[in-house]
Parts: sequence; C-alpha cells; structure tokens
Amino acid sequence: MSQLTIWTLDWVPEGPRGFVRDLRLRWACEEAGLDYDVRTVPFEDRATNHLERQPFGQVPFLNDGEIQIFESGACLLYLAGKSEKLMPTGPADAAETLEWTIAALNSLEMVSVPWWFLNMTGGAPDSLTGWLEARLGHIERVLGGREWLAAGQFTVADLIMADVLRIPSVRGFGDRPATEAYVARITDRPAFRKARADQLALFEAGDAKRQA
Amino acid sequence: MSQLTIWTLDWVPEGPRGFVRDLRLRWACEEAGLDYDVRTVPFEDRATNHLERQPFGQVPFLNDGEIQIFESGACLLYLAGKSEKLMPTGPADAAETLEWTIAALNSLEMVSVPWWFLNMTGGAPDSLTGWLEARLGHIERVLGGREWLAAGQFTVADLIMADVLRIPSVRGFGDRPATEAYVARITDRPAFRKARADQLALFEAGDAKRQA
Repeated sequence: MSQLTIWTLDWVPEGPRGFVRDLRLRWACEEAGLDYDVRTVPFEDRATNHLERQPFGQVPFLNDGEIQIFESGACLLYLAGKSEKLMPTGPADAAETLEWTIAALNSLEMVSVPWWFLNMTGGAPDSLTGWLEARLGHIERVLGGREWLAAGQFTVADLIMADVLRIPSVRGFGDRPATEAYVARITDRPAFRKARADQLALFEAGDAKRQA
Repeated sequence: MSQLTIWTLDWVPEGPRGFVRDLRLRWACEEAGLDYDVRTVPFEDRATNHLERQPFGQVPFLNDGEIQIFESGACLLYLAGKSEKLMPTGPADAAETLEWTIAALNSLEMVSVPWWFLNMTGGAPDSLTGWLEARLGHIERVLGGREWLAAGQFTVADLIMADVLRIPSVRGFGDRPATEAYVARITDRPAFRKARADQLALFEAGDAKRQA
C-alpha cells in the first residue's frame, strides 16, 4: 500500500463523472510520478459519513502517512511541495505558481462555480454572468501571451486553472481562442487522460456493485 | 525602505473601507512582526492601471525585493512561510493551516462573496442563500469545538477565515454563537486593529488629497 491515499466517493451519477475533484489529485500524482492509491466513502450518506475528515462533507481528501489534508486546492499545494514538476523551488517561480493556483480558486472559480450552480438551478443573474465574462476576458488576455501560467513550464497552477476552465458551460462561454487552445492542450496530457479514465472506471465499477 | 511592500488603492468610497484586502496583508505582517511599507495605485483608472502587476485589475499585490506576488490568499501563504506565528513548520500543523486557509477561500468565500455581490445587485437566489447557510452551519459546528482552526494556535487560517466571516451581512446571517464569538475575539487582536486603523487612515488621507 502506497503512502499517499486519495479519498473520493464510491459512486456518483453520470453528470459529475470526469469532474469529481479527486481527479485533480490523481492528475497531480500522475504528473509528478507519485505513487498513490484511491479509497472511497459511500455516496449514499456522503453529507455526514466523513465529516470528521472533511468538515463540509465533500471529497476529496488526502492521507500521506500520518498527515491528513482536505480541500482539493490545499491537497494540490501540498503535493506540489513534493515535486518540481508541479511547483519549481526557485522563490520567484514558486510565488508565481502559488499566485496563479490561488487565482484559479479565488478569482475564477469563486465566480464560475456559483454561476454554474445558479445556471443549473433556475438561471444565473445577469450581474453574475457579467462578472464571469470579465474574469474570463482577463484570463484570455493572459493566455494569449504565454504557454504556461507560471514559471515557464507546466505547473500545478495550469492543472487547477485548466480544471476550472474545462467545465463545459465555462469552456463554451464566448469565443476565447487562447483559452480554448490552452484547455485542449492541457487536457490532452497523458496524466490528465489517465486520471480521468481511472475516475470513470471507479464509478463504472460502482455501477456494477449497485446492480449486484 | 523595507523589503516588503503591500500595494493597494490610494482611495476608495466609504463602503469598502476597512474591508479592502490589503488589510489581510497588513494584518499578517503585524501578527508576524514583519516590517513593511504600503504603496498605492490610483483609484480612478484602477481597472487598467496595474494589469501588469495584477491581471484582474484588483488589489492587493505584494513585493518582497525581487519577488512579486498577487492574490491576497497567495500573499498570505507566502507571508506565512516567513513566520511560525502564521503557519507552524511541523508538517501536520502546516497541512492543517493550509487546508483551512484554502477552505476559507474556496469553500466559504466562493459562496459568501457571490451571495454578498448578488444581494447588493438585486437579491441572491434562494438556492445560493441555502448553500451559504449550509456552509456557515458547518463552520459553526467546527468553531463550537475549538478555539483556533488549525495547529492549536492562531494561524493565517484564522486570519483569512475571520476576515471572510466578519463581512457584516455574513456575520449577521442567522444565530451562530460560536462563529460570532470567534469573529469578535479575532478582530479584537491588536494586529487586526492596527491594520484596520492604518487602512482607514490611508483612505482618509486620500479624501484630503482629493479635496485639495
């Protein structure tokens, strides 16, 4: 058994498959060549069955031996501390990687996730749509001028930013050629494709168990 | 001139005074005893006058000698690397501090800021209000059982969490005695009070310049 264990749900409906955030952690481990295994908590009583490990009832969470850590963004930064493939150790490069990782979580996802959620539940107000459009426009301008967000290489900042931008409704929001090329390029990485395939396989195995 | 420079706006209207996020960085420096100075960009053309330093046109951003870093959450984690008063260096304590810092940014603020924004611009949909209520309920449960979020001491996780929770509409959302006691206790810290007073003084000086 490897030291790193990624925890996720044992099953989810079709809609979120390929998007449950354990994928972020699997992907990071694949990029960095870190050995890991995956364990699950039951979908059915997920809101309460792991509150002692994730106080909002969400997944993923991570074990590294005795270390326990939740929040996918925090797990990514934790894993990034293990590999220069995720975050270079030079102070300027590390700062740039950190700022863009947090930008994905707190400047983009802070708008895109509520926008997506409200779109799913009756429609997002125009003011929120305008805010998302402005944020995506800033990202498009940045991505028009560089291949990677930080440190002149693929980093955990690209991993999280591409994961936020690849949500279908966000990806299809307006004509943003630099963003589209970036998302297409990054989601074609073998590590992403393996992480996604492994997540899909886990939930398909969950289908079989539920039918048994 | 000190090595750390926090950048903010030279003036803002009354409403956001005491809440502009340079306060987070001032507060962290005060807690850690880090020397810093504060510089400003003009309020008037703020959306475009510092895009090369902050690609979303926001403040704050930070200089540490040659290192440049934006996103208040990233700046906080960067500063936390300089002082055990903000983040203990033991791996388990550091992981706990990191996860709660990201939780404030990506599990709480991701809901509270859009909720606040939509409340200001026509009303937040009930589904978003319900989501915020659930998140605040989880925080209340956690704060009912501990004095500090992480590592058994004040950390940068408390700084950011209290800063998110002290927004008046969030602070007044429902009856949450543990949360209220936590916010009251943390915002009574001398470092917070100094940071807030210094921000207010800067914007008052901006008033005087605009009237001159």
